[in-house]
Amino acid sequence: MAAALDNIRVVLVGTLYSGNVGSACRAMANMGIRHLTLVAPNIQNGWDEGEKMAVHAGDILRNRRETATFEEAVADCVAVVGTTARGGLYRQHVKAPRDCAADIVALAETGPVALVFGREDKGLLNEEIAQCTHLVRIPVDEGYTSINLAQAVLIVCYELFTATGLYHPPHEKAPPAPQAQKMQLMKNWQIMLNDIGFMDEKQTDHMMQGIHRIFSRGVVTKDDAAIMLGVARQALWAHRNPKLEGRKPSIA
Amino acid sequence: MAAALDNIRVVLVGTLYSGNVGSACRAMANMGIRHLTLVAPNIQNGWDEGEKMAVHAGDILRNRRETATFEEAVADCVAVVGTTARGGLYRQHVKAPRDCAADIVALAETGPVALVFGREDKGLLNEEIAQCTHLVRIPVDEGYTSINLAQAVLIVCYELFTATGLYHPPHEKAPPAPQAQKMQLMKNWQIMLNDIGFMDEKQTDHMMQGIHRIFSRGVVTKDDAAIMLGVARQALWAHRNPKLEGRKPSIA
Repeated sequence: MAAALDNIRVVLVGTLYSGNVGSACRAMANMGIRHLTLVAPNIQNGWDEGEKMAVHAGDILRNRRETATFEEAVADCVAVVGTTARGGLYRQHVKAPRDCAADIVALAETGPVALVFGREDKGLLNEEIAQCTHLVRIPVDEGYTSINLAQAVLIVCYELFTATGLYHPPHEKAPPAPQAQKMQLMKNWQIMLNDIGFMDEKQTDHMMQGIHRIFSRGVVTKDDAAIMLGVARQALWAHRNPKLEGRKPSIA
Repeated sequence: MAAALDNIRVVLVGTLYSGNVGSACRAMANMGIRHLTLVAPNIQNGWDEGEKMAVHAGDILRNRRETATFEEAVADCVAVVGTTARGGLYRQHVKAPRDCAADIVALAETGPVALVFGREDKGLLNEEIAQCTHLVRIPVDEGYTSINLAQAVLIVCYELFTATGLYHPPHEKAPPAPQAQKMQLMKNWQIMLNDIGFMDEKQTDHMMQGIHRIFSRGVVTKDDAAIMLGVARQALWAHRNPKLEGRKPSIA
C-alpha cells in the first residue's frame, strides 16, 4: 500500500500563488504522497512564500516536475482523477473522494495515478475535465463551496492515505477488564458506599444501578478497574481510620 | 443535523499566526461550522493576513469570541474534543476523527461541543488535555506528522460535516439501463461489427466477450446505452452507404 502512495502524483494546473503550492507540499507529506507536477504554473508572487509554507516538505517543492501541457503531465498515468467544485453537464458523474478512494488506491497499485487540481480562480477547464478518467468533488457546505487549493489537496490525499489502511491509530495498551474483575469492583464499591454512609440498605439496589451504569461506560481496561478498586479500598480504610478525621477536606 | 453543526465551536488556544486563524475560518465555512473562540490569542503579525486568508469567511473571523482562559471557552460544553499530534501516557485513548465523528455529532445534537486546537509550536498542554472529554489525532504519515493548524481544523470539521450526512453528492440524472436495452445493444453491435468486417463469424463469440466486458463496465445508464446503440446504427448506415467512401477518415 505504501507502493500505491509512491505511484500517486499531485498535478497542479496553472497555479497562481506559491503559498498554495507550498501548503499543498506539506499536506502531501503529511499524507505520505511526495510527487508533485506543475502544469504551466503562473506564479504571481515568486517562490519565497511557497518555501515558507512547505516548512519541512521543501524537498517536494524543489523536486517538482514542471510541464508545459496537461497531456504531458499525465501521459503515463493509469488513472487521471480531476477535482471540481462545479456541477454541470460534464460533471454529473463526480463522486465524493471517500466513495472512490479504494478504487483509486487499487489503480495506484498498478501504475501512476494523477490527482489533478485546477487554478485558484477558475478550476479545471472543460477540455481538461474531458481528459480525466475520474472526477471528484469534495463535500462542502452550500453556504461556502469554494475551498482553498491546498485544503482541497489535503482532503483528497487524506482520503487516499486513509484508504491505504497504512495508519493504525494508537490503542489502549492495557487489556480490557474481564467480567470477574468488574463484578469484584461492583461488590467492593457497594461495601464501601454502605460503610461510608453514601447510601443505606434501602437505597443500595437503586444507587448501585447508577454506579454500574457509570462504570459500564467508563471502566474499560484492567488498569481502569484497578484504579477504581483502589479507590474503594482506600475509602474504606480512611473511614475506619479515625486518625484521618482531623484533616477532612472540604470540596464543592 | 444542521442544528448539530450550529452547536459546534472551534476553539483555538494561544494561536500565533493570524493567517492560520483566517484559513481555519474558511475551512470552517466550507464545512458549515461558524462559531470560533480564541483562547488567549498570541498573534505575532497583526490581523491583515487573517482577513486575507478568510476570503469570504471574514464574518466568522470578525464574530469570534475571545476568552482569557481555556475553562471559560468550554464551560458550557457537553463535550470538549482535544486534538493532539503527540502520543504519551495521557494521550493513549486518542481516536481517529472518523472513528468518533458520529458520537461527536450526536453529542452536538444535545448541546455545545468544542473542537480544541493548540498552539502552532507546541499544541495543547497536558493540563489542557486533562480537560478534554475526547481526544483525536489525525492520521498522518510517519515521515511528516506535523500538520498545519488550519489543515487540522479542516480535517476535523470535514469529518464532522460528513458524519452529519447533510451533503448529498450529485448523482447521474439518467436512470440505469435495463437488461433488455443492454441485450439489444449487444445484438446490434454484433450485427454492425460483422457487417463492417471488424470480425468474421469464427471470431464473433470471442470478440463479443470483449465488447460485453467493456460495455458492462462503461455502459451504465439509459443515456449511455442510447449513445452506443446510435453508434452501431450509424456505422451500419455509413458502411451500406457508398457515397461516404470518398471521405473515409484516417485515424491513429
